[in-house]
Amino acid sequence: MTLTATDVAKYLHAELDGDPLARISSIGSPDTAGPEDLIYVDSERNRARAEASRALCVLAPPGLALPGKTAIHVGAPKLAFARAAALILPGKRVPSGIHATAVVSPAARVAPDATVGPYVVIEDHAAVGARTVIGAFCFVGRGATIGEESRLHPHVTLYEGVHLGSRVIAHSGSVIGADGFGYVYGEGRHWKFPQIGSVVIGDDVEIGANTTVDRGSLETTAISSGVKIDNLVQVAHNVQIGENSVIAAQTGISGSCVIGEGVAIGGQAGLGEHCNVESGAVLGGQSGILPGKTIRSGQVVWGTPARSLDRFKEQHAWISRLPELGKRLRKMV
Amino acid sequence: MTLTATDVAKYLHAELDGDPLARISSIGSPDTAGPEDLIYVDSERNRARAEASRALCVLAPPGLALPGKTAIHVGAPKLAFARAAALILPGKRVPSGIHATAVVSPAARVAPDATVGPYVVIEDHAAVGARTVIGAFCFVGRGATIGEESRLHPHVTLYEGVHLGSRVIAHSGSVIGADGFGYVYGEGRHWKFPQIGSVVIGDDVEIGANTTVDRGSLETTAISSGVKIDNLVQVAHNVQIGENSVIAAQTGISGSCVIGEGVAIGGQAGLGEHCNVESGAVLGGQSGILPGKTIRSGQVVWGTPARSLDRFKEQHAWISRLPELGKRLRKMV
Amino acid sequence: MTLTATDVAKYLHAELDGDPLARISSIGSPDTAGPEDLIYVDSERNRARAEASRALCVLAPPGLALPGKTAIHVGAPKLAFARAAALILPGKRVPSGIHATAVVSPAARVAPDATVGPYVVIEDHAAVGARTVIGAFCFVGRGATIGEESRLHPHVTLYEGVHLGSRVIAHSGSVIGADGFGYVYGEGRHWKFPQIGSVVIGDDVEIGANTTVDRGSLETTAISSGVKIDNLVQVAHNVQIGENSVIAAQTGISGSCVIGEGVAIGGQAGLGEHCNVESGAVLGGQSGILPGKTIRSGQVVWGTPARSLDRFKEQHAWISRLPELGKRLRKMV
Repeated sequence: MTLTATDVAKYLHAELDGDPLARISSIGSPDTAGPEDLIYVDSERNRARAEASRALCVLAPPGLALPGKTAIHVGAPKLAFARAAALILPGKRVPSGIHATAVVSPAARVAPDATVGPYVVIEDHAAVGARTVIGAFCFVGRGATIGEESRLHPHVTLYEGVHLGSRVIAHSGSVIGADGFGYVYGEGRHWKFPQIGSVVIGDDVEIGANTTVDRGSLETTAISSGVKIDNLVQVAHNVQIGENSVIAAQTGISGSCVIGEGVAIGGQAGLGEHCNVESGAVLGGQSGILPGKTIRSGQVVWGTPARSLDRFKEQHAWISRLPELGKRLRKMV
Repeated sequence: MTLTATDVAKYLHAELDGDPLARISSIGSPDTAGPEDLIYVDSERNRARAEASRALCVLAPPGLALPGKTAIHVGAPKLAFARAAALILPGKRVPSGIHATAVVSPAARVAPDATVGPYVVIEDHAAVGARTVIGAFCFVGRGATIGEESRLHPHVTLYEGVHLGSRVIAHSGSVIGADGFGYVYGEGRHWKFPQIGSVVIGDDVEIGANTTVDRGSLETTAISSGVKIDNLVQVAHNVQIGENSVIAAQTGISGSCVIGEGVAIGGQAGLGEHCNVESGAVLGGQSGILPGKTIRSGQVVWGTPARSLDRFKEQHAWISRLPELGKRLRKMV
Repeated sequence: MTLTATDVAKYLHAELDGDPLARISSIGSPDTAGPEDLIYVDSERNRARAEASRALCVLAPPGLALPGKTAIHVGAPKLAFARAAALILPGKRVPSGIHATAVVSPAARVAPDATVGPYVVIEDHAAVGARTVIGAFCFVGRGATIGEESRLHPHVTLYEGVHLGSRVIAHSGSVIGADGFGYVYGEGRHWKFPQIGSVVIGDDVEIGANTTVDRGSLETTAISSGVKIDNLVQVAHNVQIGENSVIAAQTGISGSCVIGEGVAIGGQAGLGEHCNVESGAVLGGQSGILPGKTIRSGQVVWGTPARSLDRFKEQHAWISRLPELGKRLRKMV
């Protein structure tokens, strides 16, 4: 879709400096962009890359002059870039309808303008909302529901009775609603604790490739609207995640953890059972939260067992000095 | 299936205190249960939740009085609950037979009362035992065998020649029998070390979603009966795991490790190659066992490199005091 | 395929000591080999296992005498074994052609001697090279290309427009080209940063089961020839990995990291964004590299935050002594 610099500036409520009719047909990075690709600069540091770029239109902070370019001045260029991309890039044109090879139960409800790809299986009483796209090989179990305008990439598995909201994106290989991991040991064997709860996922959630979200045991695993989950993440049974929290790759969240709103969790973090991470907390990559612990609102923690980042840095600095200190002490006594 | 309190008490060999004809049609948690859901209380602490519950029948320790409830007194309420659940909850009714879309080799053997779902592929010389259920999109490679009453959820991959026992549950996305990770470097490139061994999995094993179990290189990767493995776990080539061991999510077990019986491994633990974890040992979450190390029977270890939990706690306490100690020492010298 | 000891010795340019006509029909490990299986011994320590083996032919270092065996003397027996295995083991005979159930776009190009398994989906403008084998349930997205003699095991997903070279092996459940994890927060929500780059994978790359390689955001995620990646690894957007690097299971590589050639990364390592790991560096298992850090060529690092292995060992030794030191210090002051 080709627009002019004026179209984009208007859409962003931004000031334009340069050619109002400059054409914008796509987006790009400064190094590889063509003349009609929109780029952004968010710091003085990146300015040289923009100046050297073939791109003619640049999103830039107010006051940043870019000779020869058409600048669209915005307070937050990267944010504006993400928003403009949604305007400029054509949505994938996916024809609606059910592929001839899909096995859809007559007792399932599929919106007429939804798209169901090849070799999809949709079981009894499942429901697929308007304009939702179900990729090849997806499995939508009995009674599972998906809202509107959601997108399941190929090879997504929804177990029986899980619920996804609208505008949810689930990447390939993600598994929603497998049994939680719970056993009771007795009489020389592990008895499976019942895993009959469900999974409820809100709107505008993104779930990464090969991520697993287990169903509740007796309750519900709940992921609120706006949550973004990276690849290979484990979300165990009965976990609750508040709105707009962000969870990086390979993090593991054990059973019954409660995560607040706007929490940021780095990659490979691990949370023991029944942790409570309050809204706005930040957990560093590879940090480990012991079972039952609470991380206070706004706290930034690091390490295993997790402690405040300041404390972690201080301790780590002393660990670095420890060989020298230790030797000195040995001499003294 | 609706039972009476008497039915459940008899099944559990338990004492009944209350209405012998109280109806039990399902199970639940105290907070969300309906009148006919069986619940359990395993401590004084949870007693209030049970008292406030709408559930009429409660599994409770001997001597715990619950006014207005029908109590079934058992020594281990949670265990009794798991056992009762298996009685009360209806097994999934899955009609036997092979779905019209399944591609089953004429040289494969599928028991007449097994269930093969849509878009399953079963290759030559594979075998599927009685009452086993193979979910949609499962791949059963050449010569792979599955025992009786096992369940493969959708999207499970069994490579050529792997063997699963009876009553095995494999969750979606699990991959059994991919090549182990072995190369020999020489002449400027990595040569693939042959990965021609197999995988043998015993009875009553559960394998989590997106977990990977590699085939042996020249020997066999062996998982004994009763082992429970969570999601996203990596089991490398030639690993042996003893009976009833339990492995939490995202743990990685490197090649040729030998794990004893009844071992418990926390989430995100990592074991280097050729480790030996003796029976009954406990490995904490995120712990790291260096290659070739032995963890003694019954030992509880933590941290990386893993040490005994007591030692870990003591060292960690001193690390917390290190900044203060260090400053004091600096002043002294 | 049955060969003689002479055939194998000639292929390896090696000296033969024993029966030149000894038959070799397969390979094995000393403990389980039959008489016609070739085995190898690479140290005095393993010599007894070879002597006790039923195998008649042994790859062994020069000078190692094995009474009763036919020895093929080579400088690097394990390497020779891997090379000989490629000669001795029959390649999987997979008949070429497109399975009747595959859904292949008429606008895709599939080499006539390629093999496309059951229930494969190949979209418009995709290309599959000569003698490449695509396993059941693989998804080859629009415009994705695969070189010659590559092998996709069942259940591999290639998103739109990714490129795989020749002799690439992708194991089941691997997902190549899912969206990178990037958002810009503003106006109370996370805006998806565009993920419109591609993935380019060179020749002779192996990708483990359930591993995820994300597409670039605006640039390209690039994995060079000869790279070997284990199971459940995460490779984020815009990452570049140099030739012949080896990455063990469950490692996570964050966005825009640059990894040199011949780098070795242990299991469960984590790299923050924009790290630079120079050629020949070694990262220990579970090590954590902070965002933006550089690991110098040839350095061996360990721990989180990663430091040189020597430094790590020294610090760890002092941590072990810390309780004793601390108590002594307490007494002094």
